[in-house]
Amino acid sequence: MTTKEVLAEAKAVKHRLALLKTEEKNRALLAMAAALEAETDVILAANRADLDAVGSSMNDVMKDRLRLSKERVCAMAQGIREVAALPDPVGKVISRVTRPNGLILEKVRVPMGVVAIIYESRPNVTSDAAALALKSGNVCVLRGGKEAFRSSCAILAAMRRGLASVGMPETLINMVPDTTRAGATELMTATDTVDLLIPRGGAGLISACVEQAKVPCIRTGTGICHVYVDAAADLEKALNIVENAKASRPSVCNAEEVCLVSRAVAERFLPMLRRRLTDDRFAAGKPPVELRCDAEAYGIIGGILATEADFDTEFLNYILAVKVVEDVSEAIRHIEQHSTHHSDAIITEDPQAAQLFTAAIDSAAVYVNASTRFTDGGEFGLGCEIGISTQKLHARGPMGLEELTAYKYVIHGNGQIR
Amino acid sequence: MTTKEVLAEAKAVKHRLALLKTEEKNRALLAMAAALEAETDVILAANRADLDAVGSSMNDVMKDRLRLSKERVCAMAQGIREVAALPDPVGKVISRVTRPNGLILEKVRVPMGVVAIIYESRPNVTSDAAALALKSGNVCVLRGGKEAFRSSCAILAAMRRGLASVGMPETLINMVPDTTRAGATELMTATDTVDLLIPRGGAGLISACVEQAKVPCIRTGTGICHVYVDAAADLEKALNIVENAKASRPSVCNAEEVCLVSRAVAERFLPMLRRRLTDDRFAAGKPPVELRCDAEAYGIIGGILATEADFDTEFLNYILAVKVVEDVSEAIRHIEQHSTHHSDAIITEDPQAAQLFTAAIDSAAVYVNASTRFTDGGEFGLGCEIGISTQKLHARGPMGLEELTAYKYVIHGNGQIR
Repeated sequence: MTTKEVLAEAKAVKHRLALLKTEEKNRALLAMAAALEAETDVILAANRADLDAVGSSMNDVMKDRLRLSKERVCAMAQGIREVAALPDPVGKVISRVTRPNGLILEKVRVPMGVVAIIYESRPNVTSDAAALALKSGNVCVLRGGKEAFRSSCAILAAMRRGLASVGMPETLINMVPDTTRAGATELMTATDTVDLLIPRGGAGLISACVEQAKVPCIRTGTGICHVYVDAAADLEKALNIVENAKASRPSVCNAEEVCLVSRAVAERFLPMLRRRLTDDRFAAGKPPVELRCDAEAYGIIGGILATEADFDTEFLNYILAVKVVEDVSEAIRHIEQHSTHHSDAIITEDPQAAQLFTAAIDSAAVYVNASTRFTDGGEFGLGCEIGISTQKLHARGPMGLEELTAYKYVIHGNGQIR
Repeated sequence: MTTKEVLAEAKAVKHRLALLKTEEKNRALLAMAAALEAETDVILAANRADLDAVGSSMNDVMKDRLRLSKERVCAMAQGIREVAALPDPVGKVISRVTRPNGLILEKVRVPMGVVAIIYESRPNVTSDAAALALKSGNVCVLRGGKEAFRSSCAILAAMRRGLASVGMPETLINMVPDTTRAGATELMTATDTVDLLIPRGGAGLISACVEQAKVPCIRTGTGICHVYVDAAADLEKALNIVENAKASRPSVCNAEEVCLVSRAVAERFLPMLRRRLTDDRFAAGKPPVELRCDAEAYGIIGGILATEADFDTEFLNYILAVKVVEDVSEAIRHIEQHSTHHSDAIITEDPQAAQLFTAAIDSAAVYVNASTRFTDGGEFGLGCEIGISTQKLHARGPMGLEELTAYKYVIHGNGQIR
């Protein structure tokens, strides 16, 4: 099948999926989960073939992302069951008003329609995205990375057999048949079929989508997140938060990349920070964090002198750029220039500084005295996440089931004319 | 100034505008309105120059759109005052939850940032769009049609002097300096500055924006709207609604273009429809409606035989395509294939047919027993309208002040880490 044919099948079935009842969608999801578990061996064999094919061309971190195990397949099935247990956003009446002329206007939540998701090497995104799309009434068209193609195909095939086992059309979940660039471009430009495109992956993928997409697209992911330690910060809280935001999982988009420190506390705080992030971590057997300091911070704690580029880099690693600023206003100016508008935090006990910061910083999530690592669908109480939007149109921050829906107006009258 | 410089100025002032208080924005709006009235003569002179320049190259309908008068300038000023009186959406807390770990999550409404609006020959859009953008905390960058360039410049200059008179920066409202295609393309591709692009105008403009825009864009406007007269319709209601939807203002996007009639009532209804839309209107001195009938309708009432293209045409004129269908299911299938998903209506006294129709039709506004002409910001109670979205991302149907905003999460903690 060609990508065009896959898209035609997706479009053909979208009205049927939009009208499925919650129980029917949940039955489909549970059948998909059961089929994944039942076909674990087939999936693992496909995954081994993927791993053999990449051979030594891929580093260990990437290989670990690609690798599946019995436990990981179980976790994928469990993930689908958790989506089944979430409330169904479709059909919810968002608002209802009666106009002076008697018209009754209801704003009702509806699926987007056909949602395309372009992702990279994690095969588990295949089941994750399929489940979220289906629960929110959307037909998905998936396009995974070429390294994981065999794994993704095996996962999709299993889930489709699950759908068939409960009498549901297999075309509720779809994958494009090739992993060439042309296939991705076809998704990005299918304006008569794709209602929403979500790229999930590195900065290169995201910017290719933003550049080339003619279909509505969500800019996701890239996070150059800041933590600003204010003059009125509780320095112990600041240490805990900076360490957590930087080092608890440096490869994710909500990890901190830049620490700004108020000049008023820099002489006290920076030596504490250096000890906590390097010596203490080293002593505890944890990877120490490399500090890249601007001239002023370097003058206080030495280390490595930062380049300008270090303040515009998503390190995704145990590296932190450090800069001394005059006050909250300079912190705000720096963040507005360098942030990707994902997540930024202030550490302060001064309510006025906090107020200034939260009003001025225009990011999806703005924190006072908490770690940027909380920007996550689960932590926000959405129950799941298809991605984190860093644009302002449609949805911002973690996108759950509700963010995969649109609305329509349903208007009841008794003959009103204008 | 170049378009690039205009964009840079807009970006530079957006944080200041985002933080303005409601009273400050209202004071700015009232000053803009007063300045428009004070400079009516200058604006009318510029408008005369525009009209002279187009000469006989423009038809009368278009010339009427372009023409200003003292009354029209007053109406523009009054429009700005009405926007000032509307509630300010910015800063509104949409939701607030406390998470089990004590984090307090607020979802707060914020401006989009820089909003670009590309429009055609109506100079009044200049004041209308500027007022809506400013009230919703957005810096606007306007790009009007070349035929109205002098008028739009005069309107903008007056409004900017109004801003200056109350100490506000003129760069809160901006216009690109040229009306070439290159200027429009620069707006469409300014991904580091433009947070939202709204095209207002004909199908050509809209599709150029959807094709070329790399910035987030709203597809607006085009309306191939249907009214389906069901077997269980009250035929008098149906006549009133079809006439109103078609003929009360045929040049607008919420006007009906296609009437579908259930086979069960076609023999009775179509002769009534023909009389109402042609003979009665002619007798009353109103423009009669040309009926373009499919073969079956033609067999009943004659008239003009429709081509296939007539069911995919936004006539924007006193022309109605008419087709006989078997039942509500065939009506739904036809609409899903031919609708632009703007506004579609069913006329029926059968709640089941109404339920089927409203559930299945995936348009911004779906009506039961009312005219499609109600799809309008004012009629929906939004108080105003920047355009009508026919896409599903972000906003659907009439877009008012709230639809010109995004949200951000503001999270307060006391040291939480993950």
